[in-house]
Amino acid sequence: MLDFTYYAPTKVHFGKGKEQQVGEIVASYGFHTVMLQYGKESIKKSGLYDTVMASLSAAGIRVVEMGGVEPNPKITFVREAAELAKKEGVELILAVGGGSVIDSSKYTALAAANDGDVWDFITRKRTPESALPVGVILTIAAAGSEMSGSAVLSNLELSMKRGLNGDFNRPLFAILNPELTYTVSPYQTACGIVDIMAHTMERYFTDCEPTPLTDRLAESILVSVIEAGKVLMDTPDDYEARATMMWASSLSHNDLTGCGRENALPVHQLEHALSGEFDHIAHGAGLAVLFPAWGRYVLEKNLPRFAQFARRVWGVSEEDDRLAAQAGIEKMAEYFASLGMPQRLSDFDIPKNSLAKLTELCTFGNTRTVKSYVELNQKTIQEIFESCY
Amino acid sequence: MLDFTYYAPTKVHFGKGKEQQVGEIVASYGFHTVMLQYGKESIKKSGLYDTVMASLSAAGIRVVEMGGVEPNPKITFVREAAELAKKEGVELILAVGGGSVIDSSKYTALAAANDGDVWDFITRKRTPESALPVGVILTIAAAGSEMSGSAVLSNLELSMKRGLNGDFNRPLFAILNPELTYTVSPYQTACGIVDIMAHTMERYFTDCEPTPLTDRLAESILVSVIEAGKVLMDTPDDYEARATMMWASSLSHNDLTGCGRENALPVHQLEHALSGEFDHIAHGAGLAVLFPAWGRYVLEKNLPRFAQFARRVWGVSEEDDRLAAQAGIEKMAEYFASLGMPQRLSDFDIPKNSLAKLTELCTFGNTRTVKSYVELNQKTIQEIFESCY
Repeated sequence: MLDFTYYAPTKVHFGKGKEQQVGEIVASYGFHTVMLQYGKESIKKSGLYDTVMASLSAAGIRVVEMGGVEPNPKITFVREAAELAKKEGVELILAVGGGSVIDSSKYTALAAANDGDVWDFITRKRTPESALPVGVILTIAAAGSEMSGSAVLSNLELSMKRGLNGDFNRPLFAILNPELTYTVSPYQTACGIVDIMAHTMERYFTDCEPTPLTDRLAESILVSVIEAGKVLMDTPDDYEARATMMWASSLSHNDLTGCGRENALPVHQLEHALSGEFDHIAHGAGLAVLFPAWGRYVLEKNLPRFAQFARRVWGVSEEDDRLAAQAGIEKMAEYFASLGMPQRLSDFDIPKNSLAKLTELCTFGNTRTVKSYVELNQKTIQEIFESCY
Repeated sequence: MLDFTYYAPTKVHFGKGKEQQVGEIVASYGFHTVMLQYGKESIKKSGLYDTVMASLSAAGIRVVEMGGVEPNPKITFVREAAELAKKEGVELILAVGGGSVIDSSKYTALAAANDGDVWDFITRKRTPESALPVGVILTIAAAGSEMSGSAVLSNLELSMKRGLNGDFNRPLFAILNPELTYTVSPYQTACGIVDIMAHTMERYFTDCEPTPLTDRLAESILVSVIEAGKVLMDTPDDYEARATMMWASSLSHNDLTGCGRENALPVHQLEHALSGEFDHIAHGAGLAVLFPAWGRYVLEKNLPRFAQFARRVWGVSEEDDRLAAQAGIEKMAEYFASLGMPQRLSDFDIPKNSLAKLTELCTFGNTRTVKSYVELNQKTIQEIFESCY
C-alpha cells in the first residue's frame, strides 16, 4: 500500500426532496449572494429551477444567474461567468446539473478568486491561491465531480480538453436527490454507469499491491453499480437503484477507491482527447469503447489482478488466471453493450484518419506519454485507438 | 434507503513516518499554540513523544502539555485541561494516542470553547456553539474516533459513561502511520478488531432496507479486518495488515458504513455500562462478549439479513436462512475467541449480582429503553446480560 492523503470534506445531503433545503443550507454558511449555473432549459421544464429559486429567495439569498453551460464546458463561458461573479460580489457558485455544470462552476470559482487567466492554472504556469466555494445540486449520477477534487475544461481555440486537481476543487456541499435523475435518458444513464465504473476501475488497475481493503471497497461499488444499472434499463424510476448510482458516483471519484494506490486515469486521458475533438461524443460512451480496448492491451501486466477483478466483480469461475482475466474484460464489454453503449470507434461516425490527430492530442503533440499501469507512448496509444475500429 | 447526511471532513495523512510532519501540518493552518494530550508514558518510551515535540518545535509551535489521559477518559481531567487551554490561549488540541486520548481531546476542545460545565452538553441541557479544532496522531486502530463525530466520557461521581455526537467532534486532521501500532499487544489488537467490527455491524443490523451499496462496503471492511486480524496474531509487525486495520478503524466509524441506515449502536450502549462500571474491562473485550449474545437475542428480527451477513462475511454456505444466520453468529463468536477475547461475562471476574446494576446503568435507572433493531427494555437487557454468564 502506498502512502496517501484522503480529504473529502464535502457535506452530502442525500435523499428525497433535499433540493428544497438549498436556501437554508446556503444561508447556514452566512452567504448572501450566489451565482446559479445550469445547462439547458431542462431544469426549467422539470420544475427544479423554480424549486431552487423559491428556496433561495425564502432564505433571503440574492441570485446571479448564468445558465447555458454546454457539455464539455468551455473556457469562454467560464471567463464570462467569473467576470460577472466578481462584479456582483458572488460568494458561492451553485451548480445545478451534472459534471459539466459542476466543472464549469469549479473553474468559475477559481477564476473569480484569482487574477489573470484561468487557463494558466491548467498549464501549470501559476498555482491557484484559493477559490470561491462551490455548492452542488446533482441531476445526473456520472462524473463524481460533486465530491471530487478534479475538474475538466475545454479550450476550443487550442483544441484542448484538460483537467486540474486540487483541494480547492472540493465542493462545500452537495445535494443528492436520486429522484432528480428519474428523467435521465437510458443512453445518458448508461454513460453515467460507465463513467462511475471507469473512475473505480482506473484506480483499481494501478501498480501498487497489496491493498485488500481498497480493492474490496472498489469491487463493492462496481458490483452494486452493475446491478443497479440492470434495474434502471427496465425501471428508470426505481428509487433504490437511482440512489445506488448516485452515491456510487460520489464514492467512485472522491478518492476512496484509490486509497493506497496510484491515482492515474489513463483511459480518461485517451477519452478526453476523443470527446475533446468530437463534441458529439458523450464521455461515458467514449469510455465504453476505450476501456475494454485498453484492458485487452495491458492485460499481461498483471494477470492475477485482472483475474481477481473477473472473479469478484463478474463472477468468472475460470481457474486459469489468463483465461479468467480475458473473460472479465469481455464480460465488461458485453455489459456495456447490454446498456446500449457503442462498442467501436466506428460507431461514432468519425473518420479513421482522425486517429493520428487523437493520438497527437493525447500526447500533447508527442511531448508526453500517458503514464500509468503500462506507460503509453504515441505508438501504443495509436494502436489502442486502432484496435477500437 | 433512508435519507442521510454524510460529512467526514477530517484530512487523513496516511503512511510511514507521517508523524514527523505534524509540525508542518499544524503550521499550515496558521496555529501557534497547541495542547498536547497523551496517555501513559508509552509514547515517551517508543520515541514518538520526542518525534512529535521535535516536529512541532521545528515549525515554531508552542506546546502546552497535558499527559496522563486514562482509559475511559474522565471529566475531571477534561475540566482541568480546558482551564489550562483557556489560560494558555491554546488554538488546537493535539491528541497523540487512541480512542481515550482523542475523546478526552474532543471534550477538552468543547469545554475550552464554551462557558459552563461540559457535562451539561452530554445531558442535553445545553447545545455547544463551537469547539476548538482537534488534531490526531493515532497509535491504536480501534475506536475510529480519529474521523468520527462522536466521543465518550466517564463521570465517576455519577457512575456514568456517556457519549455525545456532532460535527464539532470531527477532527481537523488525523495522522495515521500503521508502524506506530506494531507494539500494540495482541490483546489490545484483538480488542481493536472487535471494536472496528462492532462499529460496522451495529449499523449493518438496523431497520432499513435495501441499502445494497452500504451493505457491500460494510462487508468489505469486515472481511478485510477479519483477514488482517488473523495475520496480526502471528505477525504483529505486518505493515499491510496494520494498515488495513488502521484505515478500517477510520472508515468503520466515520459514517460511511451507515449511509442510508439507522445510526444506532445498541451493543455499544450495553458495553458502555459494563466498562463504565468496571474500569478493568477493555471496551473491545466487553463487545466481544456482548455482540454474539445480542445477535442470538435479536436474530429472528430479520433472518435474511443475518443470513446475508453469514454468507458474505463468514462464507457460510447453509441454504436455510435461520441455520445460516445462527452459523454466522457462532462463526463470529469463534473468531473473537480465536483472537483470545473473553467469551463470557464470568471471564471478567465480576459478580453475577452486578447485572442488575448494569441494567440500571444501561437504562438510566429504568428511564429509557435502548432503541434499535429490537427495542431493549430493562427486562430484555437483563436477559442479554444473563445469557453471557
